[in-house]
Amino acid sequence: MNQQVGIGSLCFSKTPFIISTGSVVGKKEGEGPLAACFDVIGTGDEKFGEENWEAAESALQKEALTVTLGKINRQATDVRYLFAGDLLGQTIASSFGLKEFEIPMFGLYGACSTCGESLSLASMTIAAGYADCVVAVTSSHFASAEKQFRFPLEYANQRPKSATWTVTGSGAFLLVSEDKMTEWKQKPLARITGVTTGKIVDFGIKDSMNMGAAMAPGACDLIYRHLQDFGRTPTDYDKIVTGDLGTVGSEILVDLLKGKGYDISAVHEDCGVKIYDGEKQGTGAGGSGCGCSAVTLSGHYLKELQRGRLKRILFVPTGALLSTVSFNEGQTVPGIAHGVVLEHVE
Amino acid sequence: MNQQVGIGSLCFSKTPFIISTGSVVGKKEGEGPLAACFDVIGTGDEKFGEENWEAAESALQKEALTVTLGKINRQATDVRYLFAGDLLGQTIASSFGLKEFEIPMFGLYGACSTCGESLSLASMTIAAGYADCVVAVTSSHFASAEKQFRFPLEYANQRPKSATWTVTGSGAFLLVSEDKMTEWKQKPLARITGVTTGKIVDFGIKDSMNMGAAMAPGACDLIYRHLQDFGRTPTDYDKIVTGDLGTVGSEILVDLLKGKGYDISAVHEDCGVKIYDGEKQGTGAGGSGCGCSAVTLSGHYLKELQRGRLKRILFVPTGALLSTVSFNEGQTVPGIAHGVVLEHVE
Repeated sequence: MNQQVGIGSLCFSKTPFIISTGSVVGKKEGEGPLAACFDVIGTGDEKFGEENWEAAESALQKEALTVTLGKINRQATDVRYLFAGDLLGQTIASSFGLKEFEIPMFGLYGACSTCGESLSLASMTIAAGYADCVVAVTSSHFASAEKQFRFPLEYANQRPKSATWTVTGSGAFLLVSEDKMTEWKQKPLARITGVTTGKIVDFGIKDSMNMGAAMAPGACDLIYRHLQDFGRTPTDYDKIVTGDLGTVGSEILVDLLKGKGYDISAVHEDCGVKIYDGEKQGTGAGGSGCGCSAVTLSGHYLKELQRGRLKRILFVPTGALLSTVSFNEGQTVPGIAHGVVLEHVE
Repeated sequence: MNQQVGIGSLCFSKTPFIISTGSVVGKKEGEGPLAACFDVIGTGDEKFGEENWEAAESALQKEALTVTLGKINRQATDVRYLFAGDLLGQTIASSFGLKEFEIPMFGLYGACSTCGESLSLASMTIAAGYADCVVAVTSSHFASAEKQFRFPLEYANQRPKSATWTVTGSGAFLLVSEDKMTEWKQKPLARITGVTTGKIVDFGIKDSMNMGAAMAPGACDLIYRHLQDFGRTPTDYDKIVTGDLGTVGSEILVDLLKGKGYDISAVHEDCGVKIYDGEKQGTGAGGSGCGCSAVTLSGHYLKELQRGRLKRILFVPTGALLSTVSFNEGQTVPGIAHGVVLEHVE
């Protein structure tokens, strides 16, 4: 039986397996430290053959799902449910990017934590026997996000060092039951053994150029509850990987967790820090966006898990729950994070 | 065992029960035909004690959840997960309305179909044994929606007859397992016996003032697949209740389904048509918004189900997947719908 654990955590008995994944990124991500990991890298105009930034982001999701299905020679009709989301108002990148696949779909919004939310619900669906094959897919795009949340690119406005750089990219993950994996004769990239669902945590941060500080308390709450719920310590994980706290938020997270009795400094990594060379690429505190954690998990961590270089990681995408309207109305920036336990399969 | 049925449907063996619900609406909804059904009706300034429309919508969600918990003397700590969403960019009504409850939360976006999406995932979570108590909550607000999607109210622009009127309201639903219902000594309002998950359907409609026409094909696809998946006919339901097609969209839906061999005209109702007196209240084709189907189910249909005047209904909230950006960029308005089977408990 799948088990409820503590407050908001689940431990799966029949664990779902990730058997395929696809990552599609822009030129800048393709020039960073993880360049060799990605499936598709854009050539530079970042429009991916489309007329505008939003359609370009839709194209990223479409391509990520197509690559994911293509790697194992499967069709959209093999997928029972899609769990998808993005950062744009009314999540139009997902709606327009995925409509042609005609797969029953749950649209999600958890800001940049959506990758964790989609993997949580996707794995819950497989583990419950509601489906034998589902896909989780999320995206972000530097230009569509700047247009949505900050200033038109043409302003060329200055950015403080605490600001992050929205990743242009989409990552898709195909999850199946053990029976389906056997039937399809596929090897797993990793299994998902548990999840912890995030609460909204608001420390009153109001600076939209310092998302790391806004999201760190949510990540701290999630990781603390996860370790408590499962009765584990940070060393039970080879890595605890946050989504897009960046350098500023990562430091705050480590400090906050020390205050609660857990030292994660030896195992903590952040996708936003890993994806760019901040010094050379001028990306400020690091990468951000739903696409940041998605492509880093897809391109980097899943390969490490498959090879057994990592045995068990806690993957914690982090989200800042603001909009331009809430920001302009003087609201705070609450944070949320969702945790997914990924393990190597012998 | 819970069963996968057909393409995208589920039939629950251990059915979840709705044991409490709360509906909060604005003055206009409180002057309509369902006035006597709602728990809380606003006094008229529609700000609900807040400074702006978005905060007012957040207040609606907060109040709907508070009323729902209060009716059965329960606390936020009794709720294991929240499934919530709204129409605003980055779903800020939900984030700011629900953050103080500190309940692990899945943020959703399915436009006006979100009430169906949230009830689907909430019931899947209970039926799988992942939780014994969860809440689904959605909202919309006339003024925040007009600001988000159309024109500032101050323009007083004209509206075609096909346009709908966004409902100011929020509905919350508390779902529990049978064991929890027994433990808490509560009587059920209804049980959820199955769900059918929607696909995005795009017929190429581009008129944002005719949402009914844009959403009818998605509703048709959902109802058709549902009847096929469960091997049922329209007469197996006392009512098939769509969310907010309005008069124009309802007519199109009935015609489309006739073309596919099903005549639902004898059992079809639409929450958008039910909630206002269109002639007297000047609401065009009817009500719309995530709040429309939510408060109509909460205030009206659940009472009918509890009393046994309705034995089984198919509840089908409908959503139009557009944003101002997609609309201004000349995109179509794709639709989606999610189906939930609600039954009377003897």
